[in-house]
Amino acid sequence: MKVGVIGTGIMGEPMARNLARAGHQMFIHSRTRGRANALLAEGMIWCDSAAELAQSVEAVVSIVPDSSDVREVYFMRDGVCETLRPGTLCIDMSTIDPGVSKEVCAQIQSRGGRFLDAPVSGGKTGAHAGTLTIMVGGDEEDLQFAMPLFQAIGKNIVHCGPVGNGQLTKLCNQILCGLNLLAVCEAMVFARKSGLDPAVMHKAVCTGAAGSWALQNLGQRMLDRDFAPMFMIDLQQKDLRLVLQQAGALAAPMPGTALVHELLRASQAAGEGREGTQALLKTLERLGAIQVA
Amino acid sequence: MKVGVIGTGIMGEPMARNLARAGHQMFIHSRTRGRANALLAEGMIWCDSAAELAQSVEAVVSIVPDSSDVREVYFMRDGVCETLRPGTLCIDMSTIDPGVSKEVCAQIQSRGGRFLDAPVSGGKTGAHAGTLTIMVGGDEEDLQFAMPLFQAIGKNIVHCGPVGNGQLTKLCNQILCGLNLLAVCEAMVFARKSGLDPAVMHKAVCTGAAGSWALQNLGQRMLDRDFAPMFMIDLQQKDLRLVLQQAGALAAPMPGTALVHELLRASQAAGEGREGTQALLKTLERLGAIQVA
Repeated sequence: MKVGVIGTGIMGEPMARNLARAGHQMFIHSRTRGRANALLAEGMIWCDSAAELAQSVEAVVSIVPDSSDVREVYFMRDGVCETLRPGTLCIDMSTIDPGVSKEVCAQIQSRGGRFLDAPVSGGKTGAHAGTLTIMVGGDEEDLQFAMPLFQAIGKNIVHCGPVGNGQLTKLCNQILCGLNLLAVCEAMVFARKSGLDPAVMHKAVCTGAAGSWALQNLGQRMLDRDFAPMFMIDLQQKDLRLVLQQAGALAAPMPGTALVHELLRASQAAGEGREGTQALLKTLERLGAIQVA
Repeated sequence: MKVGVIGTGIMGEPMARNLARAGHQMFIHSRTRGRANALLAEGMIWCDSAAELAQSVEAVVSIVPDSSDVREVYFMRDGVCETLRPGTLCIDMSTIDPGVSKEVCAQIQSRGGRFLDAPVSGGKTGAHAGTLTIMVGGDEEDLQFAMPLFQAIGKNIVHCGPVGNGQLTKLCNQILCGLNLLAVCEAMVFARKSGLDPAVMHKAVCTGAAGSWALQNLGQRMLDRDFAPMFMIDLQQKDLRLVLQQAGALAAPMPGTALVHELLRASQAAGEGREGTQALLKTLERLGAIQVA
């Protein structure tokens, strides 16, 4: 299939690569062409704009940081909607406001196109390994059309209901990630404060009822003091802001998630917003006036 | 080996059974004899007191609810210390105040005995399957002596340092369990409030970066509205009280853990203290005036 990927960042780049490996002919566009160089060297076709890309493909995959970026990709000058051909399937894999997903869907359908929201979980590692979890909102028929693409980049592909439900499910995912992350930070600080070797503690608790992806992966990075982003604090904050907005509208009290959001704000205040979420440890370390590892 | 188990509750009963299966000759004592009936029917030997049990065995394993129970088992009238023979290894697998572990250890050593603190994680399921995580504090030599016993009941056996460090590691485990649990509750409430099918959400997020033991096991029970205890709220509260006491003494701020402790207090206020920790969902449901499943 002729597939276009818009956005070749931490997630988009390995996803485009896995789609190419699965035999699809790849067209790519990115705000800054420099970020696409590696993919171009592998034979993918550059498009100067989202509009140019949309003209050439059967499926558009967009994966950009925020709601405003998605609006830009689809609605602005040289955006997808300018050239969209009837029948083209647009799959937005960004994590954005579910309301914006519905808005983009309505515009695309009014031009004869089709739309799925399909945000992913699994981070950089999952994107490289092609083992992402994909949370899909939209029509079953469109999902079946997209299935070969999803199978090239992900493993657990779940149809969550109509358009917007992919995003809502991803927000649940982020609630879990946020609190699981805080759990690891507090356990690390407690271990160090009480004289345990945090690495030995980590080894002991990883396998039992305390276990989590966050403990295994982010916990190890904390021990290594490796704060490079698998997933950036600024993006986690964007997602938790969406959770809390949505929760506010729904009268759904989220005491834990709100706390995580506030603590990550302290990380942003300390200039750590572009580090990985595991850098939340440093905020807890400052609170406790201690260094874990 | 002749092994005595004191405390045949949710955890002690299956642990004694796995020790018997590994070929050890089992002596048991429990505050209420009725709770030992099943094990007696399987051929284990009843002892009327901890003192009587300590006379007959090479290793004493105690697994009771709280610090005061451990003190009673070892120090009170008819307790272990009355009859302890030099060289006997006492292994306390309860989760208690690390200071009390040290106190018990000192008393036992002054009588020529040996002591390990070795709390476990993995709950009822892990106790039955013999796959518990065992967090051991004490001398390496004593750990090696106890190893055949530990291997009969657990899988990940980690030496955490001197006596007391098993308990401290278990407290880290409970910090993680508490926040991972809150994460699942908030995700469930958010899903229901926003119109998702919580079971579909659960299926989507279980496999990715949001994954945890709590999500897999307690999340499924929440969906089934099965609030029977794998691990009781009252006991989780006892453990979090120990965490926060210790954290207070160490000046280790634990904002998330403190929040979990307060929310579980609301569960206790609602009369749900003897339900499983997954019943925290009901407190979040009350806060949001909604029922998830």
